Amino acid sequence: MASAPPTPHLRVDLDRLRRNVRRTAERARSLQVSLRPHVKTHKSAEIARLQLVSGAAGITVATVGEAEVFARHGCTDVFIAYPLWLDDDRASRLRDLSEICRLAIGVDSVAGAANAGRRLGGSGVEVLVEVDSGHHRTGVPADRAGDVAVAARRAGLVVRGVFTFPGHGYAPGATAAAVRDEIEALRTARDALLDEGIDVHVVSGGSTPTLAASLVPGAAEVVDELRPGVYVFGDAQQWELGVVEPADIALTCRATVVSHAHGRLVLDAGSKALGADRAAYSSGFGRLLDHPGARITALSEHHATVEFGGAALPALGSVLDVVPNHVCSAVNLADDLWVEEAGGLRAWSVTARGQNG
Amino acid sequence: MASAPPTPHLRVDLDRLRRNVRRTAERARSLQVSLRPHVKTHKSAEIARLQLVSGAAGITVATVGEAEVFARHGCTDVFIAYPLWLDDDRASRLRDLSEICRLAIGVDSVAGAANAGRRLGGSGVEVLVEVDSGHHRTGVPADRAGDVAVAARRAGLVVRGVFTFPGHGYAPGATAAAVRDEIEALRTARDALLDEGIDVHVVSGGSTPTLAASLVPGAAEVVDELRPGVYVFGDAQQWELGVVEPADIALTCRATVVSHAHGRLVLDAGSKALGADRAAYSSGFGRLLDHPGARITALSEHHATVEFGGAALPALGSVLDVVPNHVCSAVNLADDLWVEEAGGLRAWSVTARGQNG
Repeated sequence: MASAPPTPHLRVDLDRLRRNVRRTAERARSLQVSLRPHVKTHKSAEIARLQLVSGAAGITVATVGEAEVFARHGCTDVFIAYPLWLDDDRASRLRDLSEICRLAIGVDSVAGAANAGRRLGGSGVEVLVEVDSGHHRTGVPADRAGDVAVAARRAGLVVRGVFTFPGHGYAPGATAAAVRDEIEALRTARDALLDEGIDVHVVSGGSTPTLAASLVPGAAEVVDELRPGVYVFGDAQQWELGVVEPADIALTCRATVVSHAHGRLVLDAGSKALGADRAAYSSGFGRLLDHPGARITALSEHHATVEFGGAALPALGSVLDVVPNHVCSAVNLADDLWVEEAGGLRAWSVTARGQNG
Repeated sequence: MASAPPTPHLRVDLDRLRRNVRRTAERARSLQVSLRPHVKTHKSAEIARLQLVSGAAGITVATVGEAEVFARHGCTDVFIAYPLWLDDDRASRLRDLSEICRLAIGVDSVAGAANAGRRLGGSGVEVLVEVDSGHHRTGVPADRAGDVAVAARRAGLVVRGVFTFPGHGYAPGATAAAVRDEIEALRTARDALLDEGIDVHVVSGGSTPTLAASLVPGAAEVVDELRPGVYVFGDAQQWELGVVEPADIALTCRATVVSHAHGRLVLDAGSKALGADRAAYSSGFGRLLDHPGARITALSEHHATVEFGGAALPALGSVLDVVPNHVCSAVNLADDLWVEEAGGLRAWSVTARGQNG
């Protein structure tokens, strides 16, 4: 137990965190869909353990560095949901990793599959073909997934299945359509692999906004694994998308009122604590948990300027809880998460912070 | 010397860095203006040393945590250019700091001055009154600076002078007007203190975009100290504001081409390596140093999507140098800066990374 660190710092409400983990695990279980949470959100071995104990089949990460950290902390089934381009160094790290965990990576091109096969063939590292379901970031068109899978098999790799990230569901009113796109793309991709005589062991989708819609019985006929990340904490984006209620938000940035200049509130939590993410639909640079009418209208490195509406401003020196727009970015700026337990505060290390490579 | 780390990682061109430090130091010297660089940009003891050796009078930081790191690394004159709200813990840390360096803090209200005086009186920590010169973030109106200074003196603090941050100069075509505002505000504030019989030892302004304009002989009659930060590296914001040439940009994020999905380039440097900053005037989420026509049109945590124009895309696996929009944010995400020296790479620790409190 430690005394409170100076503001700004990240606080975790342990009851809410545990409840979020448990609820999502129960919903997945009731629909017989595997949960493979994306741990880039929390980058914390403690929270991965909570997820695994509650029934997660394994974890999802974005980078080889994250995979190394979580494998060293006891995660035995790791999927790097990213179309890695392998050089000698990264291939060697993956071979080492495959000795201590069950490991799969993403691939989204024939060239990428051939390159991965050349460097990883015979290692036991499996691949999933990434499919674009409408987010238009990475991933092949669904009807081309067979080509990539065939190239992977020819290069000596074991193909586990197909995956997509329906990121275009991150917009107001877009979720239901994104889930339809996701299911359609995954169904097409799965069938393309089957047409090539390739077994499909996993059809993987999901994100926090599409999670509720993905967990409908119809979807489960196609999708058998979901990879949400943000659901453990929630954030202002999810709040504004209507995906989480403020009462379920489990992470905030505790900040001090340092100025009333120009009749506005200025807090000491800036972009170096909250992250600078601002989606097109966001109403500001973050929200105040206990003041839903307030908006952060300007953000610099160590200042959040808050329009507080007509209400009386909290006094200089007051301490307030800010909800970051995008919790994954805020967590990746912090060395520790401060967890409120009975009797005090405990620091949970953000073990995989900065593991981009 | 170390082998190259995996992409994405931050590279520093040492020749360009040294040239940027030297040029600005020479210009300040020729105009008899003190330079007190803001080290939040680099958070690195090595670069602070370069700046001090080249003639900087001291350093500027934004937080008590940064001040502690740099004082422990030998910086003996530190200004925390921020209107701190002091509680017992922060006051105690400042008292400790004042034993190992000459120390000053910002104050922007009568209440803040009284609070600081109650907790720091007699400690030797000095204060500068922060003045709003048009950025409308923190700072008192210039003609109210006397009230704050009087409150500080009455509370037992030594007043060093006045300071401002002309942040509204961060916009195309806005620099010259911002410098005029800055000089006018600082002159008014200085005279307000003198009218109260308070000596003004320092009149401090400046930022990287306003630096060139601030260093004119007329300005030097009012401003006697400048606090630029970004000039050591430059970034895409400064490039697009016309403040730096690409040939002077000393920090890039080295990234690998991982996908050609949809005929676009996708790099493995996302917001967790570059930062998500995007000013209203920015043409994208970052630039490519050697491809000035390319634009990062979408950024997620580990993907930068690049519109490359009509040109042939660099091959999968190619390595490119990305110029972050806001270098201070990119540096604060990294544990190390990789410095190219003859014979290899050296890691410079981002010693004050994450020191927000």
